[in-house]
Amino acid sequence: MKFRRSERLVDMTNYLLEHPGELVSLTYFAERYSSAKSSISEDLTIIKDTFEQRGIGSLTTVPGAAGGVKYIVSIKEDEANAFIDELCDTIASPERLLPGGYLYMTDILGHPQTVNKVGRIIASMYAKKNVSVIMTMATKGISLAYAVANYLNVPVVIVRRNNKVTEGSTVSINYVSGSSKRIQTMVLSKRSLVEGSNVLIVDDFMKAGGTINGMVSLLDEFKATVAGIAVLVESEHTEECLVEDYVSLIKLTQVVERDKKINVSRGNYLTKKN
Amino acid sequence: MKFRRSERLVDMTNYLLEHPGELVSLTYFAERYSSAKSSISEDLTIIKDTFEQRGIGSLTTVPGAAGGVKYIVSIKEDEANAFIDELCDTIASPERLLPGGYLYMTDILGHPQTVNKVGRIIASMYAKKNVSVIMTMATKGISLAYAVANYLNVPVVIVRRNNKVTEGSTVSINYVSGSSKRIQTMVLSKRSLVEGSNVLIVDDFMKAGGTINGMVSLLDEFKATVAGIAVLVESEHTEECLVEDYVSLIKLTQVVERDKKINVSRGNYLTKKN
Repeated sequence: MKFRRSERLVDMTNYLLEHPGELVSLTYFAERYSSAKSSISEDLTIIKDTFEQRGIGSLTTVPGAAGGVKYIVSIKEDEANAFIDELCDTIASPERLLPGGYLYMTDILGHPQTVNKVGRIIASMYAKKNVSVIMTMATKGISLAYAVANYLNVPVVIVRRNNKVTEGSTVSINYVSGSSKRIQTMVLSKRSLVEGSNVLIVDDFMKAGGTINGMVSLLDEFKATVAGIAVLVESEHTEECLVEDYVSLIKLTQVVERDKKINVSRGNYLTKKN
Repeated sequence: MKFRRSERLVDMTNYLLEHPGELVSLTYFAERYSSAKSSISEDLTIIKDTFEQRGIGSLTTVPGAAGGVKYIVSIKEDEANAFIDELCDTIASPERLLPGGYLYMTDILGHPQTVNKVGRIIASMYAKKNVSVIMTMATKGISLAYAVANYLNVPVVIVRRNNKVTEGSTVSINYVSGSSKRIQTMVLSKRSLVEGSNVLIVDDFMKAGGTINGMVSLLDEFKATVAGIAVLVESEHTEECLVEDYVSLIKLTQVVERDKKINVSRGNYLTKKN
């Protein structure tokens, strides 16, 4: 059965979006639609142009017999900025203030459209860095880690505070929390991470960076490398930050509990982007 | 600037896939592409036909001034069955057996393509049930809950075993675990669930159903209703199952630790589907 161009365009768009970062051969598409490779090439040019113009992503073509086409996620800078600014307003709402100066962010991290957009911004920054795994700490960063993983098409591993029987044997390390200076433990299932992985650490919140620094030490134990560190919100603090090179989308500059005042601004992502 | 049909088809496909379950007005698309509504209607017919033929989903058209078009996720029965059978083989691998007869499933739950497909199968079954929230228990079910939430475009709430300061005030209940008969606690942030929500409970694993039964009791406290209960794997057990009406994709019928033998088969999803 032959497919018309219009049908191919719809189905190919869906297929590429479902397989980000994956090299799809022209032969695959040619057989899927019983069409000539030359027609498929023309289709891909249309999709490529539309993806780029609309800021959906880019299509990279790899020539040769083993070649094909690869969809790589991206986002337009003005779309990202407008979204971050909106999110800053949402986070600065006084009702979010909890006793102790903590911020309620559970609803934001539970909203798929929001989490996906954050994930897309982070994934776009690391799409060409050969990330092989996303790592996060249970539990609040998990949704975000999955959103990033979805756009980069790589697995997620989750570090925990304690052992679980369903994880098999684990590697554990002790670390010092940056803000409370307490000694804490984190564990990772031994078989969840293969040696030599290139890991992007993703989390919802970072203060002095103790937890993230702990994850970096844990990666050492697994002979894995750090592809990058990305957090949704970083909070200003008086202690020395334990993490040097990271990307933040939002920066919490001041929380005054008594006045119910929360100051937020864009994080460092714009300066780190290029 | 005017758009050609081919460009509109690519961008509309992406837009609809990003906004499942959302009513998009024809006026929105007409303005987005500076095109006549009649052209948009024709585009949508092409997308609808391709989505249905390829098993991507369905497009529902709501006529009238407040009308528009809505993308609803679905999956073809043979695609779902083939995927479940493959997943059964993966799960039955003897290396997954952990001391105590537990199964290692962390890698499966950390793999975005797998989790998305499971999410799509579950979401397809509940796409017309007016689900307003997905609920799961921390931490292993979270990835799955997000995948389902993504396809239904509704938020996720996460039940925990203990209080966290960043969750604000919580409601907690005690429940009896079905298999270990121990009394346990689960808590949910008060502001995470509004009264009258219609909640789909999603989890990775169910044995005697104690945890899921606990979540059902918790929903009572929030005056919320149960839209459904869906688990990836149910395990056969000798105790009475505490949960009556649920959907499972995979059934674990026997685990013999000594012989490293794991028996799995399709769950009840096929019989529950219609």
